[in-house]
Amino acid sequence: MNILVIGAAGDIGQAACAALKANHTLIRAGRSGGDVHVDMSDSASVDAMYARITDTFGTLGAVVCTAGDAHFAPLSDQTSDTMMLGLHQKVMGQINLVLGGLGHLADGGSFTLTSGILDRDPIVQGVGAATANGALAGFVKSAAIEMPRGLRINVVSPGMLDVSAARYGAWFAGHTPVASDRVGRAFVKSVEGAQTGQVITVD
Amino acid sequence: MNILVIGAAGDIGQAACAALKANHTLIRAGRSGGDVHVDMSDSASVDAMYARITDTFGTLGAVVCTAGDAHFAPLSDQTSDTMMLGLHQKVMGQINLVLGGLGHLADGGSFTLTSGILDRDPIVQGVGAATANGALAGFVKSAAIEMPRGLRINVVSPGMLDVSAARYGAWFAGHTPVASDRVGRAFVKSVEGAQTGQVITVD
Ligand SMILES: NC(=O)c1ccc[n+]([C@@H]2O[C@H](COP(=O)([O-])OP(=O)(O)OC[C@H]3O[C@@H](n4cnc5c(N)ncnc54)[C@H](OP(=O)(O)O)[C@@H]3O)[C@@H](O)[C@H]2O)c1
Ligand SMILES: NC(=O)c1ccc[n+]([C@@H]2O[C@H](COP(=O)([O-])OP(=O)(O)OC[C@H]3O[C@@H](n4cnc5c(N)ncnc54)[C@H](OP(=O)(O)O)[C@@H]3O)[C@@H](O)[C@H]2O)c1
Repeated sequence: MNILVIGAAGDIGQAACAALKANHTLIRAGRSGGDVHVDMSDSASVDAMYARITDTFGTLGAVVCTAGDAHFAPLSDQTSDTMMLGLHQKVMGQINLVLGGLGHLADGGSFTLTSGILDRDPIVQGVGAATANGALAGFVKSAAIEMPRGLRINVVSPGMLDVSAARYGAWFAGHTPVASDRVGRAFVKSVEGAQTGQVITVD
Repeated sequence: MNILVIGAAGDIGQAACAALKANHTLIRAGRSGGDVHVDMSDSASVDAMYARITDTFGTLGAVVCTAGDAHFAPLSDQTSDTMMLGLHQKVMGQINLVLGGLGHLADGGSFTLTSGILDRDPIVQGVGAATANGALAGFVKSAAIEMPRGLRINVVSPGMLDVSAARYGAWFAGHTPVASDRVGRAFVKSVEGAQTGQVITVD
């Protein structure tokens, strides 16, 4: 099937694409690279992307999002603006992809979003991401019961990836890095499986 | 102790105040009524409120928030704006109270926020509230590990209250209403107990 992957160039995006590419045609999206450009935090940009994709590539079988910025800082340094960044980018960006994509997915298609470990195993400076991750869990659990035409929705919630340890490791004291191929398979499970409304953890 | 209750005039606010007033001095806040006016979604308004309260009432022992709008609508009618309403009001509003209140609570004091059942037991049209509730769970779990001076933080997550059944009952098909006095006691548990980082469910 055609699978749109937003954030395909990132660490998680590459893990997802490596696992999905054997059996599917991938359309890679990001703000600055890939087959299609989109800023998912802007719903007009999302709508324009879906219109363009349907014209160019035909029907989508799945949408996978592995993008979503959040601000890392000590709680006492967080402000309304820094906390809103995660709500705007990681939460609303991914929700925009779902709301805008409802009319573009084939019957029985799926959305797979990405959150992360920090709402179940918090770290210092992680409150922006933890808040966003919790929001995404609530969103998929509730959105799943209202999906039309047999559409499904899940969120993959991995620990820190092995390939990301050099970037993030200093913040994740004592966390065991998760093998990227295991994370990739979680996206395959969501796309090719039948579950919906689930937080698919990879620890 | 002095307890600031934002949203005191609402259904949950009244339940919390009824349970807390025997042993504490309550300072009631809302956009339009009570002892102090505040719009918690505006961090400048929150900061002004805390400055005024400390001048007028002295040190705060606890902050309880029972306010937080979200937009109820079918998933297919939700937009970026309607979903952002819950993130802005119910999530960021309550986070503003925490970030702004960190310097105003006495040592060992507590924050108690309010979410609700919809991220664990979703209803049709509830995706805005479910997303907000999940965000608040992630926030308190993570913020708890960074609280200075022994401060604590929890979120009370009730089912639909008995007193709210006339307003909300049509949306909550088959939900058993929760007695308001049980909800009130959950706030007492958070304020007078020692737990932190918890979602205190009342089903
Ligand atoms: N890496 C980990 O160990 C890990 C573990 C658990 C959870 N997570 C979470 O997973 C998500 C991705 O992490 P990552 O480490 O893979 O990030 P990353 O390497 O920085 O990659 C993120 C990708 O998403 C794209 N992107 C970001 N914002 C976008 C937007 N508004 N619209 C469209 N594309 C956007 C970026 O594209 P451009 O550069 O072109 O803008 C980039 O390709 C984050 O939310 C992170 O918190 C990561
Ligand atoms: N009632 C239930 O059965 C139930 C169950 C579970 C969860 N909840 C959740 O609990 C929260 C409160 O519910 P409720 O039914 O008690 O609501 P409510 O009766 O409508 O009362 C909300 C109160 O909060 C105040 N408020 C709202 N936004 C505010 C803001 N930005 N700044 C300051 N004050 C603000 C309002 O004051 P003004 O009118 O002066 O603006 C009002 O007094 C909501 O998030 C709701 O989703 C409710």
